[in-house]
Amino acid sequence: MRYGIIGTGAIGGYYGARLARAGHEVHFLFHSDYEYVRGHGLQVNSPGGSFRLERVNAYRSAADMPQCDVIIVALKTTRESLLPSLVGPLLKPDSLILLIQNGIGVEEDVQRMFPSVSIAAGMAFICSSKTKPGVVDHFDKGSLNIAPYATAVPTKAEAVAADFVSAGVEARMAEYFEARWKKAVWNMPFNGLTVLLEAETDAILADPDTESLTRELMREVTEAANATGAKGVDMNFAEKMIAYTKGMVPYSPSMKVDFDHCREMEIHYLYTRPIAIAKAAGYEMRRMEMLRDSLLFKQRRYLG
Amino acid sequence: MRYGIIGTGAIGGYYGARLARAGHEVHFLFHSDYEYVRGHGLQVNSPGGSFRLERVNAYRSAADMPQCDVIIVALKTTRESLLPSLVGPLLKPDSLILLIQNGIGVEEDVQRMFPSVSIAAGMAFICSSKTKPGVVDHFDKGSLNIAPYATAVPTKAEAVAADFVSAGVEARMAEYFEARWKKAVWNMPFNGLTVLLEAETDAILADPDTESLTRELMREVTEAANATGAKGVDMNFAEKMIAYTKGMVPYSPSMKVDFDHCREMEIHYLYTRPIAIAKAAGYEMRRMEMLRDSLLFKQRRYLG
Repeated sequence: MRYGIIGTGAIGGYYGARLARAGHEVHFLFHSDYEYVRGHGLQVNSPGGSFRLERVNAYRSAADMPQCDVIIVALKTTRESLLPSLVGPLLKPDSLILLIQNGIGVEEDVQRMFPSVSIAAGMAFICSSKTKPGVVDHFDKGSLNIAPYATAVPTKAEAVAADFVSAGVEARMAEYFEARWKKAVWNMPFNGLTVLLEAETDAILADPDTESLTRELMREVTEAANATGAKGVDMNFAEKMIAYTKGMVPYSPSMKVDFDHCREMEIHYLYTRPIAIAKAAGYEMRRMEMLRDSLLFKQRRYLG
Repeated sequence: MRYGIIGTGAIGGYYGARLARAGHEVHFLFHSDYEYVRGHGLQVNSPGGSFRLERVNAYRSAADMPQCDVIIVALKTTRESLLPSLVGPLLKPDSLILLIQNGIGVEEDVQRMFPSVSIAAGMAFICSSKTKPGVVDHFDKGSLNIAPYATAVPTKAEAVAADFVSAGVEARMAEYFEARWKKAVWNMPFNGLTVLLEAETDAILADPDTESLTRELMREVTEAANATGAKGVDMNFAEKMIAYTKGMVPYSPSMKVDFDHCREMEIHYLYTRPIAIAKAAGYEMRRMEMLRDSLLFKQRRYLG
């Protein structure tokens, strides 16, 4: 299968390079890193073994890319309006779009852009960042849950998961609603709180009051998930996430990294959409509304 | 009537000086300002007319103060544990303690310290600060609502209100629960949000999302008030507070001033107690719990 990577950053760069290294045909869309990668290749630094792709199918325009069987979108959701022009040229009749993006509601909106295309959600559990042009630093984890969305048949997504497994990535199939809401159990409390309180995950969980607040925020996500009909999202899972995060190194979630680098935050898909989806199902996420409003304020005030 | 002022700062200094200037007998407890006031008197700068008390009944120890008919407590509630030793020496059988302090639950706790003493709550609507030793800067407002607590008979509180009126202070009698919860409608949203978002009242109300958040926080206070049986606290009043605050100059509530000066914040009586009182009445203040937890985190992190 031929892969196209839209957004070759910390996520797209890591997973795309893994596939390419395992011998799969991968085409990468670059923005500012294009010239560097043409000259120097794409480097992945990883505790599991660093490697460099010397020859990279690199593009600076999606219009120049070939049609692909699988189009992996790993852009920030703040750039979602670019997808028609970035994904469109790569589509053929049986393409699968795999959205490795944060939040809830992304698949619904992308399906509206491409009504007849199969879509799958990719939930990445990975600590990685792009610190220099053409260099992805992978620190920890790296597993990927893949969940077909709506009418997408599982066969192709399963083939993608198998390709990832062949490339050394711990990839698993998952149920869409359960997987998205489970990711939200971690994402919604920690992304917002670390920005609001200007602290990393360890400090928030070391303080008894913000540990308790984290738990109440997770409870709100589980109750919202249940209200929307998602299965398997409960406080047992939330407690596992708290214990898991306590075992992590001090960590800045992507929204905190964005805020610290004065980049627009992914408030829409991480907060506004799941809050609205829960509300439509009859559940008010009061604490999350407060977090969202505070984040919107900080975004306007500090990021213009 | 003989007045004793415990806590001669921006509030106690202003109201005590007004009474003394009108000819009432007032005894002031000072802490660090004692020497200065003995030498220079007590100065009040006010748009309604500045004045200086040349001769001040100043003390640096409550043990040296005479018994008083009215003991005005204007300390921060973070110093509440000092009250037995600061108020005790001034008490006589028919003393009234007037607590001009922030928050909800203060009277209940002070009544427990002095079970047989009459207590009244004083709700001050005033912008003032003590910027230098012995100098109170009064910027705006200055009215005082006085509400007898529990078994306190209104007669003495009414006499105190009359003394204040004679001293040029717009003093009015009020119903205890209504007055305390009405004050909380303003206090609970603005004190915490200005600290959490590091912004003044004008910026919070100029942003549509935090204006809406302010309204939802006020709604929570009105619902809590109603759950506890307090009358007259509704969204009409909340809307008036929002409109009133929009008409104010950019303002830092006392908790923001405390935080900015690295002083302990009044989280207990402004948040923890009203939240617990509402919960005991069957109402969960979810947004306020989140605000309190965040403030406790900031207090530990930045104020040690």
